[in-house]
Amino acid sequence: MNATLPTARSSAIATLGIVGGGQLAQMTAQAASALGVEVAILERAAEFPARPLAARCLQGDWNDPRELVRLAEGCDVVTLENEFVDADALLQLEASGARLHPGAHTIRTVQDKFAQKSAFAKAGLPLPRFAAVESPGEVARLAREWGYPLVLKKRRNGYDGKGNATVRSEGEIERAWQQLGGGAHALYAEAFCPFVAELAIMVTRGLDGAFAVYPVVETVQKDHICHVVRVPSPAVGSHAPAVERIARCAVESVQGVGSFGLELFLLADGELLVNEIAPRVHNSGHYTIEACETSQFENHVRAVLGWPLGSTRMLAPAAVMINLLGAGPGPGRPAGLERAFAVEGAHLHLYGKRESARGRKLGHVTALGSSVEDAQARARAAADALVFGTPS
Amino acid sequence: MNATLPTARSSAIATLGIVGGGQLAQMTAQAASALGVEVAILERAAEFPARPLAARCLQGDWNDPRELVRLAEGCDVVTLENEFVDADALLQLEASGARLHPGAHTIRTVQDKFAQKSAFAKAGLPLPRFAAVESPGEVARLAREWGYPLVLKKRRNGYDGKGNATVRSEGEIERAWQQLGGGAHALYAEAFCPFVAELAIMVTRGLDGAFAVYPVVETVQKDHICHVVRVPSPAVGSHAPAVERIARCAVESVQGVGSFGLELFLLADGELLVNEIAPRVHNSGHYTIEACETSQFENHVRAVLGWPLGSTRMLAPAAVMINLLGAGPGPGRPAGLERAFAVEGAHLHLYGKRESARGRKLGHVTALGSSVEDAQARARAAADALVFGTPS
Repeated sequence: MNATLPTARSSAIATLGIVGGGQLAQMTAQAASALGVEVAILERAAEFPARPLAARCLQGDWNDPRELVRLAEGCDVVTLENEFVDADALLQLEASGARLHPGAHTIRTVQDKFAQKSAFAKAGLPLPRFAAVESPGEVARLAREWGYPLVLKKRRNGYDGKGNATVRSEGEIERAWQQLGGGAHALYAEAFCPFVAELAIMVTRGLDGAFAVYPVVETVQKDHICHVVRVPSPAVGSHAPAVERIARCAVESVQGVGSFGLELFLLADGELLVNEIAPRVHNSGHYTIEACETSQFENHVRAVLGWPLGSTRMLAPAAVMINLLGAGPGPGRPAGLERAFAVEGAHLHLYGKRESARGRKLGHVTALGSSVEDAQARARAAADALVFGTPS
Repeated sequence: MNATLPTARSSAIATLGIVGGGQLAQMTAQAASALGVEVAILERAAEFPARPLAARCLQGDWNDPRELVRLAEGCDVVTLENEFVDADALLQLEASGARLHPGAHTIRTVQDKFAQKSAFAKAGLPLPRFAAVESPGEVARLAREWGYPLVLKKRRNGYDGKGNATVRSEGEIERAWQQLGGGAHALYAEAFCPFVAELAIMVTRGLDGAFAVYPVVETVQKDHICHVVRVPSPAVGSHAPAVERIARCAVESVQGVGSFGLELFLLADGELLVNEIAPRVHNSGHYTIEACETSQFENHVRAVLGWPLGSTRMLAPAAVMINLLGAGPGPGRPAGLERAFAVEGAHLHLYGKRESARGRKLGHVTALGSSVEDAQARARAAADALVFGTPS
């Protein structure tokens, strides 16, 4: 560890600060605990999934550099659960002498999807056509060049499809522009990708630049939320080496350290196009907890603390992860727990959120199997047994 | 959950109270967290391994029924990390209306090794000869019948070989009697078992009486501490079904609920004799975290909360667990972390204890492998890389 930094005051092997306390922080803390690593959390909310696992909790605004510095006190390293933290505040955190991984520069590039794509383009990665736009007129001009549909996107703070609008004709441009708050928010346009499958891959990059590369998965989105993750997938086929190469290059192009999730489009002609990267552990990698020798969470902890990374080998022929989403308002505790636990080979993860809401991520199920069909049947049986809230 | 009990005040799926906060509680809390289950801990010490994972910590004497009742407030169920809690205090906890698993009756029977063996004898389980003794003269009389050596044992509070003394001749009886505090402490005598191997098995029994039975392992003790656990072991051979049958019967004979660890002796002629049972998750079952579909910790949580148990299927052909013991006084953080992390397939568990002491359990390593030799080589390489404290 860096001797110039304040060392942990507790008996922990190390202390990891996490900005944000949702389920990603919760699962990171579970992995950290096995390594004797304590976590300290900065959260805006008073209640959050990682709270019971945090040795120290700070309630405050993570865009306030003073709060970030307060979090870093007593931590060996600070990391992020989301990429929406103000990059200038993160720069001030680094200027204070704290170690932050991934760093402010990485977050600044990734959180602006136009800057992210520009960095990927500079690194020679395959991308859909994209361009910054400053007026509805510019969108119309691009559409005449690219054809319809095209996708208008917010440069910042979009996730799970929030911040995107598909434009199918010139008549739809103005409404999409208003919907995304064009003018108030910086937007960019992207050519629509007629994909046949969405692929994803987790990679962890160590402080020394070494990589741990996870299997390529197929993701199935529903209402723009990652819903099912399948590995192996016939769609991946012979593309795995290319996806792995793109993922390494993408993380290097933004000088990333830690676990990163890359999403790609696979087109009918076999072309791969990068969709976007998440500079953090990612929903498409939850399956690694049970399916891989070392989970994305443990490898993230090892990476940011400067330790060697662990094997990403699969422990079963196949794995399927299904998200557990709220059906409507109600408590965060689902009905059907006993039936779900009775499904052999299904691993339940419940995030302990207080309230259900329609579409809210409240947990996930991973099942291992002898084939992807076998794993999917088990995961589906457990997921279907659980109901969060009442459909409204 | 039982509607007549106070429900959890937090957003957790359920809240589990644990009496004791060492590494067994820590690993239980890690498993509980994935299920959205929070833990509350009653500990005598101010610092303990499970502390960072506890949503609520009470510092107090676990033999004081008022403290136990205070722990149970807001918990759905209370369980135990060790079997040395006063059984009358546990009875009072149950009388208060709290749910305790395993129950006071089970703990009372198991914590008195003479009562435990008597219950097993009544159930027809194979045991070494044993008898309560009230004077050195009675020991001498038994030895004339059984022959030397024999083992003199404390009926209560013995663990890791503490509380045992081997008597090799009549001249050694008096010293063994004094060493164990005969008179002040109730003792019993047991015929020495000339075993060729020590076997162990974890079983979890649900509230409904259903069993989850783990693979039979071979344990190698060093200085009376479980040091290496190997699965599969050639020593187990064709004995697995008999060991499984004995383990189920043993847990049923004490009306156990939760995970239990049973230790047995294997004699040269193939005879199996029960050594003792632990009414809790057990060191010989740590390998299940990585090696089995459902760990002993997750199944314990599921059992005591009344949920169906998970599969105990092995995910790899072999697994070996090696305990990490202190070499001498020093910090609880080992030297050699980076070298240990670099061993492929080795899973480090560090308990985050503040101080090392000679022989203190400070962590463990589990490695999976294609064979037990392969797994053992990996676990050994990682364990040998780590040094806790300075040999004195």
